Amino acid sequence: MRELAELLLDGRLLTAPESIEAYRRDFVPDPSAGMPCAVALCASAADVQASLRWATRHRVPVVTRGAGTGLSGGATAVDGCLVVSTAGMTDIRVDPDARVATCGAGALNASVKAAAARHGLFYPPDPGSFEISTIGGNIATNAGGLCCVKYGVTAAYVLGIEVVLADGTLLELGGRTVKNVAGLPLLPLFVGSEGTLGVITRAHLRLLPAPPPASTVVAVFPTMSRAGEAVVAIGRTVVTSMLELLDNRTINNVEDMRPSGLDRDAAALLLAQTDAAGSGRLEDAATIGRLCRDSGATELYSTDDLAEGDLFVDIRRSTGPAVERRGSLLPEDVGVPVDRLPQLLARIEEIAAELGVEIPVVAHAGDGNAHPTIVYDSDSEDRARVAFDRILRTAVDLGGTITGEHGVGRAKRPALESQIGSGALRISRLIKAALDPEGILNPGVLL
Amino acid sequence: MRELAELLLDGRLLTAPESIEAYRRDFVPDPSAGMPCAVALCASAADVQASLRWATRHRVPVVTRGAGTGLSGGATAVDGCLVVSTAGMTDIRVDPDARVATCGAGALNASVKAAAARHGLFYPPDPGSFEISTIGGNIATNAGGLCCVKYGVTAAYVLGIEVVLADGTLLELGGRTVKNVAGLPLLPLFVGSEGTLGVITRAHLRLLPAPPPASTVVAVFPTMSRAGEAVVAIGRTVVTSMLELLDNRTINNVEDMRPSGLDRDAAALLLAQTDAAGSGRLEDAATIGRLCRDSGATELYSTDDLAEGDLFVDIRRSTGPAVERRGSLLPEDVGVPVDRLPQLLARIEEIAAELGVEIPVVAHAGDGNAHPTIVYDSDSEDRARVAFDRILRTAVDLGGTITGEHGVGRAKRPALESQIGSGALRISRLIKAALDPEGILNPGVLL
Ligand SMILES: Cc1cc2nc3c(=O)[nH]c(=O)nc-3n(C[C@H](O)[C@H](O)[C@H](O)COP(=O)(O)OP(=O)(O)OC[C@H]3O[C@@H](n4cnc5c(N)ncnc54)[C@H](O)[C@@H]3O)c2cc1C
Ligand SMILES: Cc1cc2nc3c(=O)[nH]c(=O)nc-3n(C[C@H](O)[C@H](O)[C@H](O)COP(=O)(O)OP(=O)(O)OC[C@H]3O[C@@H](n4cnc5c(N)ncnc54)[C@H](O)[C@@H]3O)c2cc1C
Repeated sequence: MRELAELLLDGRLLTAPESIEAYRRDFVPDPSAGMPCAVALCASAADVQASLRWATRHRVPVVTRGAGTGLSGGATAVDGCLVVSTAGMTDIRVDPDARVATCGAGALNASVKAAAARHGLFYPPDPGSFEISTIGGNIATNAGGLCCVKYGVTAAYVLGIEVVLADGTLLELGGRTVKNVAGLPLLPLFVGSEGTLGVITRAHLRLLPAPPPASTVVAVFPTMSRAGEAVVAIGRTVVTSMLELLDNRTINNVEDMRPSGLDRDAAALLLAQTDAAGSGRLEDAATIGRLCRDSGATELYSTDDLAEGDLFVDIRRSTGPAVERRGSLLPEDVGVPVDRLPQLLARIEEIAAELGVEIPVVAHAGDGNAHPTIVYDSDSEDRARVAFDRILRTAVDLGGTITGEHGVGRAKRPALESQIGSGALRISRLIKAALDPEGILNPGVLL
Repeated sequence: MRELAELLLDGRLLTAPESIEAYRRDFVPDPSAGMPCAVALCASAADVQASLRWATRHRVPVVTRGAGTGLSGGATAVDGCLVVSTAGMTDIRVDPDARVATCGAGALNASVKAAAARHGLFYPPDPGSFEISTIGGNIATNAGGLCCVKYGVTAAYVLGIEVVLADGTLLELGGRTVKNVAGLPLLPLFVGSEGTLGVITRAHLRLLPAPPPASTVVAVFPTMSRAGEAVVAIGRTVVTSMLELLDNRTINNVEDMRPSGLDRDAAALLLAQTDAAGSGRLEDAATIGRLCRDSGATELYSTDDLAEGDLFVDIRRSTGPAVERRGSLLPEDVGVPVDRLPQLLARIEEIAAELGVEIPVVAHAGDGNAHPTIVYDSDSEDRARVAFDRILRTAVDLGGTITGEHGVGRAKRPALESQIGSGALRISRLIKAALDPEGILNPGVLL
């Protein structure tokens, strides 16, 4: 340990059990989380290189950690591991003419957004955790969010990264150009690799001109299948910058926590925004409203005032805290082709009924990405786990995915083969072995 | 050969030298192109599997080929190789509710666009070759085009692929969902892999709602640096669906071929389009015009009529044929951060003067991606090759890339290490070795 402490140039090494405790888990309360031997608070790529060289030399497993907001156990410690934290590398530089932000892996998503905004520019990716999660973590999980339906996921904004491999090699992949096809596409292999292939220390991010303030449309539906029809119709017709769905249980959870006059009998609430240029957004908002009505919406509210619209976005963002009050939680994150969302949601309702557990759902509906949250207590924990697995199976059966944006981590590793097949798993292992031959990076995660 | 011919189920094997001749080269007139032993015209994934198993068994190199429109020699045959053609797998199915097109690798880009359009949907990627190049080739090269500045490159539209590995293993990667982070990101590793990791047989492509007809702005600049200023200003302010630049030489080439009243003295012509929703596009077009004027445009033309705008897009598309009349050509494809485009273009002009060769340039300016074309004859061929290398070096020196969209192929393989570094090259070789241990796929391409 002393050896490693001395190797860190600008960073610090934590070894006291009480200071390590906070680094054992991400947002998944995993009772089997191990105890690290130390936490390296890295302040530079050189610190990360020193840490990984040390870990390779001593065959110590490494768990890389950003802010620890992950929802799949990707940053859960294993016994005796070295936690490599990139949270301290927070510098951000914006080059407005090139429309590129360059930042350390520990920069918060919100800080990058803010830095870009000071130049009239926009960094789109917006996971619900954007105020507390790091760019490194966002890249490692290829994080999604509310605006993906128009702007795409994190991968669409990563122009280049600096990454340290298990043996301490520092690679620069990609760069600051928008388009680049020089060589095998190594860069996107790291975006979403969940810390299993290397430690990202720096990123070049693509920025867009800031869009105008969005217009908002809210619609209430008497049945889920009508809401699903609206989602399909809207998706075929206009580009929305947000298209979120709350189911009946979620509506009631939110009303319980903070009454805002939502219809407690509604089967679904759809929240759409458009940030199209100029007055195009008024026209698009009108189209969205018409399509909702055509699909059978019983109530419709539309506003071009951003502050008014934000009240609904706040309601959407409060669904997390609202469900937390219900009990212990297993967060889910499944995806299906957009038109199959109603089938997915119907089946989730059946699973909840079969097993006698509550499963409120919010969905990034425009992308077919649903977040059922399984609520349980000590009595229903086993049934909750069965529900978790059944939902994963349902997603696969519907031609979907066991994870749309949160990642496989530890939580869904057992289900991965049913998703990608044995051939893809074999190839993944070959690639992992090529890049991390000792298997020291995030063992037990993803593979 | 007979063995392989019998293994093909629906496809055919060409072995006669005269029928093979057309499969020896892509659009690069490589005099060192080899003579294949045969061409497998595959009609199904099973045909591709049979071909690759046969090739592995007999250690025969395989060159995969779509339409052969590549500009980097990626589909150039090597002596004794088996050419695996996926051009015959042309089926297309559109699922409008899911907004997904599923097609064989041989489907033409234009056919996918047309099939999507029949449902009011839009497949954006538009390489200049879109009417004659295949989706498989587009995916293998991660093709760009005119609309990338708004819509991104091919990778942004590939939701899933079916791919056959060197040993005949068939993999399904990704699927039909918009978001998917299940497992290591293998899918994007194949997008842009130039046929070196596997043969793509099928793809699921993401579709968008069809945008409205674009508005067009054309501006003429007295100096290249003023045009560059306009490009930067526009990029910081509005989202354009096209932002192309023609230099003085290109303008004159086009006028020589087809006089259309372009200003032969202009240093640069900028062609911008916006397809923003509703009347937003009129407002954006006005903003583009204002920014051009602010940057010193001496002439400005703006139209909301698509047919009128298309006349200028035709001029842009005619730059290829126009330069072909000048002599033999070395097509280039370099990229820099957007704000460095003027520096790149100035340096290219110097290189042309230094070496006494003509190098007209068109650029996907909004992305910082330039296509200088080096014109040569038998006298200047050597100097042309020197110019080619100097332009590559210039791009690297400016923090750019030796290829923005055409790929490394054979033509730029010697320059790759200067671009990506020895570390990334080593990792690329490890991955290549893991997926294609005998090295039979496109030997000499990219690696
Ligand atoms: C309230 C809340 C809302 C959320 N909403 C969303 C959402 O809308 N969309 C979404 O996609 N996710 C969401 N998440 C999940 C989570 O915030 C994201 O996965 C986020 O990207 C994790 O970032 P982090 O910095 O916290 O990473 P961590 O949790 O620390 O790590 C996540 C994974 O990335 C790896 N990792 C972290 N940093 C690096 C690095 N520098 N190099 C290599 N690997 C690294 C870790 O090993 C781990 O596998 C939400 C979480 C919360 C708590
Ligand atoms: C007039 C013209 C304009 C062009 N404009 C552009 C442009 O704007 N942007 C741009 O990016 N490119 C452009 N190109 C280059 C070229 O058209 C693209 O690279 C295109 O994607 C190649 O498609 P193809 O079917 O012709 O592939 P090919 O030329 O046959 O092959 C290209 C590469 O892909 C591999 N490949 C082909 N099919 C498969 C498959 N099924 N599985 C695995 N590997 C495969 C080949 O081995 C080769 O390495 C242009 C070319 C021309 C002639």
